[in-house]
Amino acid sequence: MSDGLITLTTDFGLTSPYVASMKGVILSLNPGAQLIDLSHQIPPHDVRHAAIFLASALPYFPPKTLHVVVVDPGVGTDRAVLYIESDGQRILAPDNGCWTLLRPEQPPDRVIKLTVARFWRIKVSPTFHGRDILAPAAGYLSLGVDPVELGPEVTEWVRLQHTEPVRQGDNLTGEIVFVDHFGNLLSNIRAELLPPRPTRVSVRIGEQEVTRWVRTYGEADKGEVVALISSAGTLEVAQVRGSAARLLGVGVGAPVHVTWSEEG
Amino acid sequence: MSDGLITLTTDFGLTSPYVASMKGVILSLNPGAQLIDLSHQIPPHDVRHAAIFLASALPYFPPKTLHVVVVDPGVGTDRAVLYIESDGQRILAPDNGCWTLLRPEQPPDRVIKLTVARFWRIKVSPTFHGRDILAPAAGYLSLGVDPVELGPEVTEWVRLQHTEPVRQGDNLTGEIVFVDHFGNLLSNIRAELLPPRPTRVSVRIGEQEVTRWVRTYGEADKGEVVALISSAGTLEVAQVRGSAARLLGVGVGAPVHVTWSEEG
Amino acid sequence: MSDGLITLTTDFGLTSPYVASMKGVILSLNPGAQLIDLSHQIPPHDVRHAAIFLASALPYFPPKTLHVVVVDPGVGTDRAVLYIESDGQRILAPDNGCWTLLRPEQPPDRVIKLTVARFWRIKVSPTFHGRDILAPAAGYLSLGVDPVELGPEVTEWVRLQHTEPVRQGDNLTGEIVFVDHFGNLLSNIRAELLPPRPTRVSVRIGEQEVTRWVRTYGEADKGEVVALISSAGTLEVAQVRGSAARLLGVGVGAPVHVTWSEEG
Repeated sequence: MSDGLITLTTDFGLTSPYVASMKGVILSLNPGAQLIDLSHQIPPHDVRHAAIFLASALPYFPPKTLHVVVVDPGVGTDRAVLYIESDGQRILAPDNGCWTLLRPEQPPDRVIKLTVARFWRIKVSPTFHGRDILAPAAGYLSLGVDPVELGPEVTEWVRLQHTEPVRQGDNLTGEIVFVDHFGNLLSNIRAELLPPRPTRVSVRIGEQEVTRWVRTYGEADKGEVVALISSAGTLEVAQVRGSAARLLGVGVGAPVHVTWSEEG
Repeated sequence: MSDGLITLTTDFGLTSPYVASMKGVILSLNPGAQLIDLSHQIPPHDVRHAAIFLASALPYFPPKTLHVVVVDPGVGTDRAVLYIESDGQRILAPDNGCWTLLRPEQPPDRVIKLTVARFWRIKVSPTFHGRDILAPAAGYLSLGVDPVELGPEVTEWVRLQHTEPVRQGDNLTGEIVFVDHFGNLLSNIRAELLPPRPTRVSVRIGEQEVTRWVRTYGEADKGEVVALISSAGTLEVAQVRGSAARLLGVGVGAPVHVTWSEEG
Repeated sequence: MSDGLITLTTDFGLTSPYVASMKGVILSLNPGAQLIDLSHQIPPHDVRHAAIFLASALPYFPPKTLHVVVVDPGVGTDRAVLYIESDGQRILAPDNGCWTLLRPEQPPDRVIKLTVARFWRIKVSPTFHGRDILAPAAGYLSLGVDPVELGPEVTEWVRLQHTEPVRQGDNLTGEIVFVDHFGNLLSNIRAELLPPRPTRVSVRIGEQEVTRWVRTYGEADKGEVVALISSAGTLEVAQVRGSAARLLGVGVGAPVHVTWSEEG
């Protein structure tokens, strides 16, 4: 059981008082809440970055953990604010699809639209629903309020599209979907799409032809560009102890072409 | 009740071991303390930034929460170290005025000068009172030590000046007092100074004339520069999904001129 | 007693989901764990930076605190993963020497090599032992698992070398070993190597001759370059309210020459 465990993910950065305000609101309702920072460095307004971040991290949390996620360029417009149960986790977020890559092949267990204002702060700023709607909702839920009290169940919400790689024989075309802190380039090509023991794999990305296939970074020398299966189970291009993103000058959206011969 | 709840706000950044050292000192005295990071990204030495950060965030915390705030360019000189009770919150900070914008119109309930060395670390570094005086004081207070034991009450302290906007008819001149993580420009012009339903408002800042007045960012198109009431209740100039600070090339201290016609 | 207290130090940054994943793994095993972030801003792959960070911060923590430290360029190679007891602290880290500056003159109390896979996640990624070996080990240890169950005691491990300053009469040559968030330059010259009340000290670093010796920054004017004893007890060169690193254009490894006359 993880009542009281509340994680926070935002694009607010930490020079501004926004994260602090949200923590204050939650703790004012439930001083026993255990706040866990996941990140406040989601790139500003980048809902897709948040979605991949969450899809990668949330499955490791205890069932029923409550995650508050605020990347909210649409704040104050008529976009809804949602409570979601999906993949065993509980999420509070604006209706921007940030949670829809978590388990894209399966519908969520429950999605509720937050409409009951008595669970909000009395005065709701049109530019900060994180503090005035999501934080108090998190506080109340952590105190045991039943989610059905927050508003009606809904069946429509924003869905982010997963771009799927395209296969043609021994030839796959995918794209970079995430650049990590080290500058490693993570693609949407899952390991299962590649042969189990590929030989002579070639990965083309930007101007670069990557032919060095490794299990882990340390198998190659500092500065080498390598291809490997990432810790998320997808094709990754990395520069050993360097930044592939900087070296190759590519980022999210860059196409990735893979060809290979299978081991005989 | 929030005994044990201790927030931390510093300009120490996180590449250095200073925040970690303070956490260790507090937890060594009170392993049951619940540490909440507010920010360690206050711009170096920027007491005014810290003051606006605190004035914006602290009112959301449970009464009697203990806040340790270390932005301390004067460390080791004869500036005092203080314990403050103001606006229901408890603050430990160097005497630099960082807490004086929290409730500027009212005197604090109590200000105590930390002079009793048995509540400090045995050896006090002249360059790190955060670790050697403030952190142990926080640990002891969280264990229930009465603040009067820490030193004498005082009636003098550093006060930061609030610059007030100047009004001339339907014409206000204020200034930018805070630039947030998104590059939104927050002024010292409170909403109450503006007409409730202004029409034809014009905000002049830098070289820019802003005439688009919105309730929230999403009402305008990406890239547009808009004026609105911030989540702190003050006039804000923002670029939708962009950085007004970067676009307009202005920052803290930039003058803001507002003119308007009232709705008939 | 500090069972349940677990600190985290990584070079993962916070735009990526890696820290969040580790927190999820630990909390899934022990929802009562109290997670304390020390830093996720260790410069990428910089084991020496991590080592000095830890040597400076860990001694302030309660005895037996468990510290998980992941700066791991060798992940997935045959480098070991270790559990260490040293200086009263407990550390989980890859075998990269990051803990060996903590108490360099004394052997650790115990070093165990993590080999028992039932304390790991079932599937171990070759690129993320932080999540798949270190985080679960931390979870199990915080639940009371005896470290001897994790693997055999070992007597060999990677040791980082401490460069010692060289003395010739009233003349010391050391080097910069750490640049902090403010741009202060911290050397390996301990205060004990300098005369207690030095007069006419001269510190040469880069192109600069520093002759202004102070107890603390505020004794000199803004912009001045000063020498002083740091909060870690070593010779430091700083620019008052500025960045000595930027001003002098020097960093880690830069030689520092000190000469002085003693007080008569």
